[in-house]
Amino acid sequence: MNATFRDYVLLKVSRNKFMQQLGFTLTEINAGEVKGELVISETHEQQNGFVHGGVISALCDMACGFAAYSMVPNGVQVFTVELKVSYLRPGMGEKILARGWVLKPGKRFHFCESELYVVREGKEILIAKASSTMGVVEDKVNDKYGG
Amino acid sequence: MNATFRDYVLLKVSRNKFMQQLGFTLTEINAGEVKGELVISETHEQQNGFVHGGVISALCDMACGFAAYSMVPNGVQVFTVELKVSYLRPGMGEKILARGWVLKPGKRFHFCESELYVVREGKEILIAKASSTMGVVEDKVNDKYGG
Amino acid sequence: MNATFRDYVLLKVSRNKFMQQLGFTLTEINAGEVKGELVISETHEQQNGFVHGGVISALCDMACGFAAYSMVPNGVQVFTVELKVSYLRPGMGEKILARGWVLKPGKRFHFCESELYVVREGKEILIAKASSTMGVVEDKVNDKYGG
Amino acid sequence: MNATFRDYVLLKVSRNKFMQQLGFTLTEINAGEVKGELVISETHEQQNGFVHGGVISALCDMACGFAAYSMVPNGVQVFTVELKVSYLRPGMGEKILARGWVLKPGKRFHFCESELYVVREGKEILIAKASSTMGVVEDKVNDKYGG
Repeated sequence: MNATFRDYVLLKVSRNKFMQQLGFTLTEINAGEVKGELVISETHEQQNGFVHGGVISALCDMACGFAAYSMVPNGVQVFTVELKVSYLRPGMGEKILARGWVLKPGKRFHFCESELYVVREGKEILIAKASSTMGVVEDKVNDKYGG
Repeated sequence: MNATFRDYVLLKVSRNKFMQQLGFTLTEINAGEVKGELVISETHEQQNGFVHGGVISALCDMACGFAAYSMVPNGVQVFTVELKVSYLRPGMGEKILARGWVLKPGKRFHFCESELYVVREGKEILIAKASSTMGVVEDKVNDKYGG
Repeated sequence: MNATFRDYVLLKVSRNKFMQQLGFTLTEINAGEVKGELVISETHEQQNGFVHGGVISALCDMACGFAAYSMVPNGVQVFTVELKVSYLRPGMGEKILARGWVLKPGKRFHFCESELYVVREGKEILIAKASSTMGVVEDKVNDKYGG
Repeated sequence: MNATFRDYVLLKVSRNKFMQQLGFTLTEINAGEVKGELVISETHEQQNGFVHGGVISALCDMACGFAAYSMVPNGVQVFTVELKVSYLRPGMGEKILARGWVLKPGKRFHFCESELYVVREGKEILIAKASSTMGVVEDKVNDKYGG
């Protein structure tokens, strides 16, 4: 186990430009599970005025990804191998709550799931469920920040 | 067949706020196939400086969705039922080229696929492949624009 | 709700030849959830001697499908639109226990999930998790049994 | 490249009990692509008399898996990490033709796709399309055949 997993997840969050532009923030970080939220605004809309499927898949990806980051040693990278999202209901409401968790950790990849709820008139309604494979990469990554 | 499918797709594009914020534009619209591109900027980055998985899934979703819109009558809506994205290579480059197409059209849903390429130093490199089910909804939708 | 959903599921089970050849049986049928089991034999093996991925995906499909059948009126058909299976651990053991449930029912399709456990030396170990879209077809189907 | 990839694939085929019970045979083995076929019989049917979704997912899995095996060194194992199948049309006909290929090979996994056609009254009709992640395992596997 990584004793400083919260700091490691927060380091990754701080470097995540797209997450910031989207407006998604983490509200809870546990070992193998994260929670987060996004206040819905007009920039998140698709052609009918609902939350865009791309926003939803992005939140599902981040919830899975940060859950996976909470279960790797410092310096180890996590990459999405594949992600499947089921769109259960249209995204209408004030806010989206996301939860991601590691279903089965592994040496080479973590299987993760995530679910999104909209908050609408005080009620939480499940709108999406995702399943993903997150690759765990111990080798040096030749990236912007030196891994 | 919808004789004015290009106009119908462009109407949907014009209402798509998230697509505009992301910076994704369509460059070609055929019956059952669309192409588009996105100039990569820092706002699209994840924690390692690569294009965010959420940007990639959003582009895959839009490429599939607009391909599906090119094969429905005017007034009929398209919604993503589910989307699976395989992340084949890290997204590094100047630009992303997207292509989406209808694999099998149907009365109730269109099965679609899409693929993304990065343009890097003049070369096109496949980075993602998606498969999705797009629901075709003929009933009146109670949305922002009156369907 | 279908008051005779158990009988309707059992009717579908009785016509399912592949299920019988595989040796999978339902042990519990509730509204929106089914359980079943399969005694593992040599005919279920793949090239390493583990339970074949195709057996696993077939059980996941049936668990999802019969859960969906438990939530439709008599005479309405259920068809798999798409199925994604995550293979969490190798299938080794005496028996497989399957559970399938409807995550979100709908008029046009039911989103379902299923999970499989192997029983090995008295312990239940999760080996697979699936997510699927099950189409609900009210129209007359031109099939072997007259729908 | 593995110079004896055909022999290695055939070795894996010869050990695959479930494939034999199903009646699926390979008809062509190339580097990164395999073809196969299955004569449809009553044991393959689901509750409506069509080919069972579990048969279809099993064939998709095998087509992907053997394509992956054609691109690994002797002694290296391939395991399905995840598989998604889209069921495009009902499976009715005399025979199923399967084709699987490696979309993107890698050190740790091969991304694969497969498609199935039924042969009906002399015509080939696409009925399913699959996308999968195949894990490539170089370590010793503690399996029935000693890896």
